[in-house]
Amino acid sequence: MITIEQQISDLARRAKVASSSLTVLSTVTKNRVLQKVAELLIEEKESIQRENEKDLVNGRQKGLSAAMLDRLRLSDTVLQSMVTALHEVCALPDPIGKVDDLVKRPNGLLVGRMRVPLGVIAMVYESRPNVTVEAAALCIKTGNAVILRGGSEAIHSNLALADILQKALVSQQVDKDVVQVIPTTDRQAVSHLLTLEEYIDLVIPRGGEGLIRFVSQNSRIPVLKHYKGVCHLYIDKDADVAKAVPLAINSKTHRPGVCNALEGLLIHEEIAAQALPVLATALIDKGVELRGCTKSTSLDKRVIKAADSDWGTEFLDLVLCVKVVKDFEEAKAYIMKYGSQHTESIVTENYSTAQRFINEIDASAVMVNASTRFNDGGQLGLGAEIGISTTKLHAYGPMGLEELTTRKFIVYGQGQVRV
Amino acid sequence: MITIEQQISDLARRAKVASSSLTVLSTVTKNRVLQKVAELLIEEKESIQRENEKDLVNGRQKGLSAAMLDRLRLSDTVLQSMVTALHEVCALPDPIGKVDDLVKRPNGLLVGRMRVPLGVIAMVYESRPNVTVEAAALCIKTGNAVILRGGSEAIHSNLALADILQKALVSQQVDKDVVQVIPTTDRQAVSHLLTLEEYIDLVIPRGGEGLIRFVSQNSRIPVLKHYKGVCHLYIDKDADVAKAVPLAINSKTHRPGVCNALEGLLIHEEIAAQALPVLATALIDKGVELRGCTKSTSLDKRVIKAADSDWGTEFLDLVLCVKVVKDFEEAKAYIMKYGSQHTESIVTENYSTAQRFINEIDASAVMVNASTRFNDGGQLGLGAEIGISTTKLHAYGPMGLEELTTRKFIVYGQGQVRV
Repeated sequence: MITIEQQISDLARRAKVASSSLTVLSTVTKNRVLQKVAELLIEEKESIQRENEKDLVNGRQKGLSAAMLDRLRLSDTVLQSMVTALHEVCALPDPIGKVDDLVKRPNGLLVGRMRVPLGVIAMVYESRPNVTVEAAALCIKTGNAVILRGGSEAIHSNLALADILQKALVSQQVDKDVVQVIPTTDRQAVSHLLTLEEYIDLVIPRGGEGLIRFVSQNSRIPVLKHYKGVCHLYIDKDADVAKAVPLAINSKTHRPGVCNALEGLLIHEEIAAQALPVLATALIDKGVELRGCTKSTSLDKRVIKAADSDWGTEFLDLVLCVKVVKDFEEAKAYIMKYGSQHTESIVTENYSTAQRFINEIDASAVMVNASTRFNDGGQLGLGAEIGISTTKLHAYGPMGLEELTTRKFIVYGQGQVRV
Repeated sequence: MITIEQQISDLARRAKVASSSLTVLSTVTKNRVLQKVAELLIEEKESIQRENEKDLVNGRQKGLSAAMLDRLRLSDTVLQSMVTALHEVCALPDPIGKVDDLVKRPNGLLVGRMRVPLGVIAMVYESRPNVTVEAAALCIKTGNAVILRGGSEAIHSNLALADILQKALVSQQVDKDVVQVIPTTDRQAVSHLLTLEEYIDLVIPRGGEGLIRFVSQNSRIPVLKHYKGVCHLYIDKDADVAKAVPLAINSKTHRPGVCNALEGLLIHEEIAAQALPVLATALIDKGVELRGCTKSTSLDKRVIKAADSDWGTEFLDLVLCVKVVKDFEEAKAYIMKYGSQHTESIVTENYSTAQRFINEIDASAVMVNASTRFNDGGQLGLGAEIGISTTKLHAYGPMGLEELTTRKFIVYGQGQVRV
């Protein structure tokens, strides 16, 4: 009888071996694997949905909310959206092997930097089983092996999807260990996985702040993550209020439960008397509860007094903090104190203020006159997204294919020696 | 009385505050600081050398070797080389603020990625006090605050240099906490420093494997490092032996004690009978001891039988492992097993074999017909080097100015919302 630790070590060791075979895989083969996954998702729909049903039954017994059961369900529509996503990843350019800046040095050496896979990536996530296929697709396309650990409530669905993924790999003579789903829901498996730095190059956790903190604090492997998204919209004194209203509404209410949703509205005091009532009317009309500083409550009685604990809170709900600030400096200081370096946006018609904001605000995405909801790999042009990083090392902001690679130096010589 | 932990936390907190002021600093000001450092190094030479003398006296009492004392000495020549290095960093282009790929999205948003500083960098190093000034210069140029912790044997020298660096910062109205040297040699200071992830963005350890392992194993902050450089030169069956000899000599003997020096020579069996005696003669002539596999000892009696522990050893000395391999696959497998992903080079005239090596070998620098000694920031065109990373995240290979930065997304909109 082998222990969980041995089982996980063995799985990670096999991922490492599999990753070395991926380096030489052509784009054509990698795309064929992805196309095969798309075909099998449809061909084997019944068996996938049968396994998914086990998770749904268990979920109902455990009392999961209707919303959570809905996220768990691999309906025909969800499977079709996975197929579409696979075709999109196929269509993206393959970053592997691209050489940047092949330049000739004074001694005649040709020196360049070639994009190569990272090696083995571990994904630890909660939520929807779609992540299983999407993350695997991005890793396959970038020549990385991947170890997937989804939520315990989706274990049957994830194992069924892993089976599809491995069948597709095998159909193209690729090592099936390129994609592995951890076959146990034991928490000890994750703890042990995070110690295997000799096999795993990167861990990407996705889910609630609790999961991400657990991974960060227990990992001996580099982690790319964001704990939370506390995003702000700053209405400058030179803002066009007609632009500010739809930007605030979209940022806050388009999808309140996600990381790039708005959590704080800052308003320059010179424009507050004019802008706040208009913004408040529009936001309250959409069901948003406003919690503000004393200046904002005195300007608009519908704003309720914020508690100290509200500032910097990621509500993930129709609640928004409102703060009147006396100038750019105060807005910047507030963002530095309460922001999470995720997404920060200014509304202004003033050229210099816009440029100051872009240059001085430290966040993974800094925007002028744009909804915070645009901080997303697809929206920003990466084509796909495996997560968003507010860590500055390696990736800052949405991570697409390129962020799953690194660059090695390549040197073409003719016998040069160093003098 | 404050504890060492409080002292280090306070120092790191001040570094964090100082780093935010650096974001808006112009290239002109940063260069003026560096020029001022260069001036002060000459103007205050006597006081620097007086402090350096304290370290030399202590070093002699502690029985440091002549070589170590020599590395410690801030002679006129060493100070002059530091001045030259500072002028070189001044002359390098400033990466901060550079925007890559500002492109228009279908909805009219202009999206780009702007290079920004990492924030606060901690350098933990042994050896020469020059590192104090060189690392500080690279961090200042890239808008990062830096916390420096050199070897205990160089503490007086490093504090004297820190004083010069801070004077130069203050002369240009820059926060002096941008550069701080930890003013104690207590080991507990480093242990605590490595836990301060809320203030420090990156740790770069430089020194022996022991130091680097200590830092890696105790750090809660991302670490860029290489443990060691076990570099190989593979003499392919289609090698030009006339090229192979100077490449082996240069790679092994140019500076045997550094990380890009050669530690293993692999020779294809079809060329071994011809190439090995020629290579052995040249290497032995330079004082190199050859330790080989049974095939190599039988081909050349001057090769002594290697012990199992020799394979993969970083000798940092005039000792070289020699292994006859039966083909490319065996050479590749050997490199994967014993290499340290630092520098790998092939000698061949065969086009396809050269391309296979470039594509398939996983190391921070992969070379054809070039000395392993070229894996160096200056030699590969980075202009300067703060270290070499064999970690794949963020940087792989020599790290120059760009590797001390990250990129944030910038978005210029006209009121766009997400649909």
